[in-house]
Amino acid sequence: MSCANTLLAWSRDVTRSGRGMNAAVSIWRRLSLFVLVSSLCSCPCRAEDSAMENIVTEKKAEESHRQDSADLLVFILLLTLTILTIWLFKHRRFRFLHETGLAMIYGLLVGVVLRYAIHVPSDMNNVTLSCNVNASPATLLVNVSGKFYEYTLKGEISANDVDDIQDNEMLRKVTFDPEVFFNILLPPIIFHAGYSLKQRHFFRNLGSILAYAFVGTVVSCFIIGLFMYGCVMLMKQIGHMGGDFFFTDCLFFGAIVSATDPVTVLAIFNELQVDADLYALLFGESVLNDAVAVVLSSSIVAYQPEGDNTHTFEAMAMLKSFGIFLGVFSGSFALGVATGVVTALISFNFTKLRDFPLLETALFFLMSWSTFLLAEACGFTGVVAVLFCGMTQAHYTFNNLSPESQDRTKQLFELLNFLAENFIFSYMGLTLFTFHNHVFNPIFIVGAFLAVFLGRAVNIYPLSFLLNLGRRNKISSNFQHMMMFAGLRGAMTFALSIRDTATYARQMMFSTTLLVVFFTVWICGGGTTQMLSCQKIRSIGPDGVERRSTKHESAWFFRIWYNFDHNYLKPILTHSGPPLNATLPACCGPLARCLTSPQAYENEEQLKDSDSDLILNDGDITLSYGDVTVSTDAAGAHTSGTPVGGVAVNSDEALDRELAFGDHELVIRGTRLVLPMDDSEPPLPLDSHRHRHKNETMS
Amino acid sequence: MSCANTLLAWSRDVTRSGRGMNAAVSIWRRLSLFVLVSSLCSCPCRAEDSAMENIVTEKKAEESHRQDSADLLVFILLLTLTILTIWLFKHRRFRFLHETGLAMIYGLLVGVVLRYAIHVPSDMNNVTLSCNVNASPATLLVNVSGKFYEYTLKGEISANDVDDIQDNEMLRKVTFDPEVFFNILLPPIIFHAGYSLKQRHFFRNLGSILAYAFVGTVVSCFIIGLFMYGCVMLMKQIGHMGGDFFFTDCLFFGAIVSATDPVTVLAIFNELQVDADLYALLFGESVLNDAVAVVLSSSIVAYQPEGDNTHTFEAMAMLKSFGIFLGVFSGSFALGVATGVVTALISFNFTKLRDFPLLETALFFLMSWSTFLLAEACGFTGVVAVLFCGMTQAHYTFNNLSPESQDRTKQLFELLNFLAENFIFSYMGLTLFTFHNHVFNPIFIVGAFLAVFLGRAVNIYPLSFLLNLGRRNKISSNFQHMMMFAGLRGAMTFALSIRDTATYARQMMFSTTLLVVFFTVWICGGGTTQMLSCQKIRSIGPDGVERRSTKHESAWFFRIWYNFDHNYLKPILTHSGPPLNATLPACCGPLARCLTSPQAYENEEQLKDSDSDLILNDGDITLSYGDVTVSTDAAGAHTSGTPVGGVAVNSDEALDRELAFGDHELVIRGTRLVLPMDDSEPPLPLDSHRHRHKNETMS
Repeated sequence: MSCANTLLAWSRDVTRSGRGMNAAVSIWRRLSLFVLVSSLCSCPCRAEDSAMENIVTEKKAEESHRQDSADLLVFILLLTLTILTIWLFKHRRFRFLHETGLAMIYGLLVGVVLRYAIHVPSDMNNVTLSCNVNASPATLLVNVSGKFYEYTLKGEISANDVDDIQDNEMLRKVTFDPEVFFNILLPPIIFHAGYSLKQRHFFRNLGSILAYAFVGTVVSCFIIGLFMYGCVMLMKQIGHMGGDFFFTDCLFFGAIVSATDPVTVLAIFNELQVDADLYALLFGESVLNDAVAVVLSSSIVAYQPEGDNTHTFEAMAMLKSFGIFLGVFSGSFALGVATGVVTALISFNFTKLRDFPLLETALFFLMSWSTFLLAEACGFTGVVAVLFCGMTQAHYTFNNLSPESQDRTKQLFELLNFLAENFIFSYMGLTLFTFHNHVFNPIFIVGAFLAVFLGRAVNIYPLSFLLNLGRRNKISSNFQHMMMFAGLRGAMTFALSIRDTATYARQMMFSTTLLVVFFTVWICGGGTTQMLSCQKIRSIGPDGVERRSTKHESAWFFRIWYNFDHNYLKPILTHSGPPLNATLPACCGPLARCLTSPQAYENEEQLKDSDSDLILNDGDITLSYGDVTVSTDAAGAHTSGTPVGGVAVNSDEALDRELAFGDHELVIRGTRLVLPMDDSEPPLPLDSHRHRHKNETMS
Repeated sequence: MSCANTLLAWSRDVTRSGRGMNAAVSIWRRLSLFVLVSSLCSCPCRAEDSAMENIVTEKKAEESHRQDSADLLVFILLLTLTILTIWLFKHRRFRFLHETGLAMIYGLLVGVVLRYAIHVPSDMNNVTLSCNVNASPATLLVNVSGKFYEYTLKGEISANDVDDIQDNEMLRKVTFDPEVFFNILLPPIIFHAGYSLKQRHFFRNLGSILAYAFVGTVVSCFIIGLFMYGCVMLMKQIGHMGGDFFFTDCLFFGAIVSATDPVTVLAIFNELQVDADLYALLFGESVLNDAVAVVLSSSIVAYQPEGDNTHTFEAMAMLKSFGIFLGVFSGSFALGVATGVVTALISFNFTKLRDFPLLETALFFLMSWSTFLLAEACGFTGVVAVLFCGMTQAHYTFNNLSPESQDRTKQLFELLNFLAENFIFSYMGLTLFTFHNHVFNPIFIVGAFLAVFLGRAVNIYPLSFLLNLGRRNKISSNFQHMMMFAGLRGAMTFALSIRDTATYARQMMFSTTLLVVFFTVWICGGGTTQMLSCQKIRSIGPDGVERRSTKHESAWFFRIWYNFDHNYLKPILTHSGPPLNATLPACCGPLARCLTSPQAYENEEQLKDSDSDLILNDGDITLSYGDVTVSTDAAGAHTSGTPVGGVAVNSDEALDRELAFGDHELVIRGTRLVLPMDDSEPPLPLDSHRHRHKNETMS
């Protein structure tokens, strides 16, 4: 069964993922399937050849093509409607419902209409026959009077569906292949998240974010899994369980509902200009835990103990799963970073590419896409690779792009993200009514809600406590409550849960997940504004002084990484940063000269001429991180007047600067929040920037 | 056979077009196919169930998925390589090879490697068996021990291929479904062409362009068809023909090779700043004749006389085909324009949408896409609808967009166009070696080249002679030679010819078409610079005075249309143009007040204040077109200093102005060429604009 399901999913994947490769053809050959139809075939009736050919007419084929176009059109119009309503909401500053929540509502409405209002009139000519074969290979080769026709496995049809054909027609038509989400819709969303992640506060809180994303997600997964296993036991006791539900299924459920969505809350945070550290913590965690959840869930699926009972605990299988987790995650990470670095190197070496923004943008797009494909081709997780590719692109490649390409790439991925996201959320709404195998179990649903709440709490509060032991800038309790509240479940949770809905357990999970997503997006998403004011979290508020000290809290490992990045990676991969021969030991002189871009020297010379006061406190390259707070504040005020091309050899000041470049809008907000009393900055351009920012980052 | 082929194409279409709708499921139900497998099944051997399940393992499925990703990755890397080389060419100002020609060369190289260098080792376990059924329905329902599996028809496999499995594997893998071109790759290309068409010279030469596109393409189609029929007759006489080749096939060939490509030559024209009238004539013709050729070819396919011999001449069937041509073309045209107008109305009424460029861009994209779907759903031609939608969007919607969205939409479609185009051309190169059923017939090929040459000549020279009788600004003979030379065949010709390669005739057409495309893109495309200098066509050259009189040549019907557009459509659909109550008769006052945007009044008031000298020669709304040449030149010089929001009620001056807005870059070039002695324009910003223009329109 599980084999057939995987095959099914994969077969859909191959045929549906929009790539149109005739791959299934070759698969036929590769798999060399034995198709046995001989003795098992039992068809009750038989028609003449001519009748056959009449039935399968061009007319009918054309009609279906039209029908398909019309169905897709419905989705497009749904999205259009969503956009127009969103605009209305934005215009009226109505913040109780985010666009994703709205898309779900429209999806629900369309789902209700499809389910209950539209009845396709029963076609009297419709006689369904089937041939009995004793296998379901991915590809069938059918010999029709000497001509060979190739058929691809589309999927299993439940026996009920075969009987009850007409009513399902409309509903089955609007059902997308689950792999579409993973191969087409999720990658731009995740890439965009990674590409938007570049901001100083993210890197400053990197340690905490990693802790929440890795430790927190794993803890949450196991807590939810254990709790749900309790529920399942209870249900089995009182006879509410209609099928198998193993501990691995519970863990799988834990993994998929541990992926929080960065979309909804953060859009509101953006609009309300909420505290930058909280924003960075939540955004960073949401983005990274998506990646963790994907790999975690696939590792859990890969847990297969030897022997008869495949659902017992076995240390070896457990270790293997853990190895898979580590291998897949680090492999995807490495691939994503590698492609990002290659793109950075290309854009670094082909400097004249800057004259052609279209070529630059196309190259950037293709390289980012190839990350996904490369990861999939290597057996890693494309979505995870794309995330880290996006982060690397933002950190290095972005700096090498021409200003026009910077705008273009941002806008392109913003648009793709917007469309994909709203499509997923409206499809989510639709699915509640159009999915056929829903299993709504009250005990499981209540248990799931409790488990999700518990899992989030166990993620946030104990971890925050532990992190606060190490952080100089503590995560205050109102921040913790906000993070607890803002753990929405969204696109990734949905995509993971719809990917496989073949077994009873998976169907129940899917139905429950849908409810969890609806609840969190509508209630938690809608209540964000209230929660913020209730927790007294304001953008420019009482804790302005506290914010100034964020710098102190950076962990030692981040400091090491930062210095390495600033002194070696940035000069090699971008045109910013100090020349390498200033940072490498003297013995590496020739190497440094060869790797440093001429521009870096130019920048340095220019710097020496115009900014000689900066050069004065140079030299101390390996300057430890925490001890220059005061001078940095001064330098930060100074920075705003310095041209972008300038190089700050002082690595600490450079941290401020270089994080300030590239993601202009985010940094504008950051600056506004970190230095609220900084009156060296003229208010007028800031306001215009903020205005622009608000428009651009509203998704 | 033809029925099965259509079904095959359609079935691929449904499953492959990247939409992932489970449409085939419903089709199964709708078509209610009788699948008879009973007595005809004759499989020589039989395996156990368990063996079955072992063969179809998850491992293998995963492996294929990886392989598919790797294959697609090859294409992406091919595109990346093309981009980097293009950049090199652009950087070195190497104009002998356009990027599309380059993409073809890379495609060819990869094709050679795939064909001759890579030999997949023969798998010894590979035993191919098949079941014999007496029909090839679109969907098969297979009953495997009580479970129903659904299979979709993938395509026919030639008997040779079945024997000779291993060698083809690699080649078949890189074969895309032809419908991908029509449903995914062509629409953005065609839309972009329509969206870029808005320029004054296009509208001024509208009559001639329509004549070339409609009359010329039809004439060319029939001339080529007749000539090829002669060739086919000759081949049949000397026994060089290996299959059927009817007159309709010849006409079909004529239709598909009559579609000229706007890409290659025009990119060079752009760079060299060639005469704007010539540019407009060529671009307009190329764009429109694509649409004509698509509809023409489908009408020819639809030609089906009654009776036994389906390839005789029959007046009724001919008339019916002509009716289909008119119906499909006008239907697609109407749909495209209608969606464009709806988008314009939305963007007109939701004025506050301008504050959210992302929403605006998304709306624009979705509405344009829905045109394609709507046309396909109604049975019209999506590609044609998309073309006219693009033109309408450029003419009306574009003016309502915020400046940022104007940039965004232009850049988005520029990128999509660039990627799709280079993908198609590199695939073209690949196909020469990877397509399996090539039929290269020397006589047919030589005949085709002669026919293409002849067809183009019969299109251009006689039509130009006739048009020159009516034009005040004659199309000079060097322009005619240039148009003759610049009739490249490209993406549309390829897409039309690969769409159906089932019969011998179609296979021969496809192979020949490929050669025609290669030849014209490499030789004619590469020789454009030489041809231009040989024909002494220069941008700012000897015929500057002649250019000044372009206005005179506009046809009467264009004048009528222009006045209607300016006085009624523009005010209703955009925020430019005069208020309606200035142009409508007095009795329509309330209606006019209701339809005119407040902005138009504002503009008018503003105009009264600042530009009262313009208002002085107002009033003469229905002013005939030709008699204000001198004042227009003066006004044209004046216009460059007027803000964009201003309204010119004088319709003739408005023609200049409003065509000048919106597509800034193109107009800059236009201005430069039309008014070469106009020294009121400062040279510096023009140069910078030109520079920017060159970068942006290089595709």
